[in-house]
Amino acid sequence: MSKKTNAAILIIGNEILSGRTQDTNTSTLSLWLNSLGVSVQEVRVVPDVEETIVNSVNLLRNTYDYVFTTGGIGPTHDDITAESISKAFNLEYEIHKEGYKILEAYYKPGEFNEGRQKMIWMPRNSKLILNPTSGAPGFRVENVFCLPGVPSILKSMLGGLKNDIVGGKPILSLTINLRTVESEIAKSLTKVQQNNKDVEIGSYPFFQAGKLGVSIVIRSDDQDKINTCNSQILEFVKKKKIEVVKRD
Amino acid sequence: MSKKTNAAILIIGNEILSGRTQDTNTSTLSLWLNSLGVSVQEVRVVPDVEETIVNSVNLLRNTYDYVFTTGGIGPTHDDITAESISKAFNLEYEIHKEGYKILEAYYKPGEFNEGRQKMIWMPRNSKLILNPTSGAPGFRVENVFCLPGVPSILKSMLGGLKNDIVGGKPILSLTINLRTVESEIAKSLTKVQQNNKDVEIGSYPFFQAGKLGVSIVIRSDDQDKINTCNSQILEFVKKKKIEVVKRD
Repeated sequence: MSKKTNAAILIIGNEILSGRTQDTNTSTLSLWLNSLGVSVQEVRVVPDVEETIVNSVNLLRNTYDYVFTTGGIGPTHDDITAESISKAFNLEYEIHKEGYKILEAYYKPGEFNEGRQKMIWMPRNSKLILNPTSGAPGFRVENVFCLPGVPSILKSMLGGLKNDIVGGKPILSLTINLRTVESEIAKSLTKVQQNNKDVEIGSYPFFQAGKLGVSIVIRSDDQDKINTCNSQILEFVKKKKIEVVKRD
Repeated sequence: MSKKTNAAILIIGNEILSGRTQDTNTSTLSLWLNSLGVSVQEVRVVPDVEETIVNSVNLLRNTYDYVFTTGGIGPTHDDITAESISKAFNLEYEIHKEGYKILEAYYKPGEFNEGRQKMIWMPRNSKLILNPTSGAPGFRVENVFCLPGVPSILKSMLGGLKNDIVGGKPILSLTINLRTVESEIAKSLTKVQQNNKDVEIGSYPFFQAGKLGVSIVIRSDDQDKINTCNSQILEFVKKKKIEVVKRD
């Protein structure tokens, strides 16, 4: 497979590590990036600890084309993403003038208090990522995009970012759901994978309405290659008299 | 804070990185480990690529007290966890005799086929992790525990592992839900954190039934310290006339 544009996601937040909050941003970001032809190669979840964030960001931004961070850009003491990113890039951590104007206009007079002002302290010369939901912007430094942790706000900010991402061909996928178990198809599926080395074929067991099944997922940026695999899989499925089923 | 027993989670699977599947095992494992006095310090999600798995496992097992991997122990071509762990530890990858007996007894005569036999190829001298749901065991090598990716199966295997984990005092938490926004309480909350440095205080905005709120989460292994923070927070909450609310 040709070298794909890739990305990593860095999830910053004790609430994910403690198990209290279920991360959903990985899935949101990955699906969105796939549609832009960018493949997520790694996700890390780290605590609200400056040194850890600085080291992780520096490693990831030097390894992948794009890095997306989520969380830690709010007004409270545990929101240390912006300051950590400043340190990672060795940039001044300061009030972002354009961001200041946006929030000054967003809040009613007198409501743009110290807590809220913390949200526009950023690495010097950050590019703002506009927030249509709740005012406070995210920011971009080079290939690192810093987004909030609240899923609905994060989602609302992606639309404005599309032109900032230069990806490859969108990554396409096709799923075949079978009423079988993995061990029944393992050998045949291995052959299909061997015959189509530049296509990613995954096999995932599922339980639905008390019955076992397997989802086979074929992924590639080339629809023809997906179709070829699909035919080869349906061929052995037919021979083995396995039922193809629908799944929501 | 005294040195806590810590752990990392390594999630192995293209299906999580592609956004197709929402990981829920992190939350399951973290909550369970917290109850045993083990604090999860890092989570990584990596693709089904041997070199990446080997390197990640070796780094994590040398950094943390425990490592839990999820995914990649089924019978299909994309299940490469056991072989990768063998390489990480430089151990033979071979049929596990005890595991073989378990699966031979589990399946009906003639059903223990090649695909299923792949599931008991493991690093030499692995300790089995029994699977009350679907037969095929996980395995442990030193401080690395390898579990399946299917959440219901993973959950069913944790009960049998309790005695394998030597943790500290269970990590307790208390949540206070407030009808306010973070910027209103940021300054006061910072003071409470500064006065209680060995307690972890997190602040998380939420939306419920169209209203904004903030959850404050206090975490420590010492209930008295949690109570002290709780009092100090409720004190400023009362002064500011902020409503304490219930949340599911």
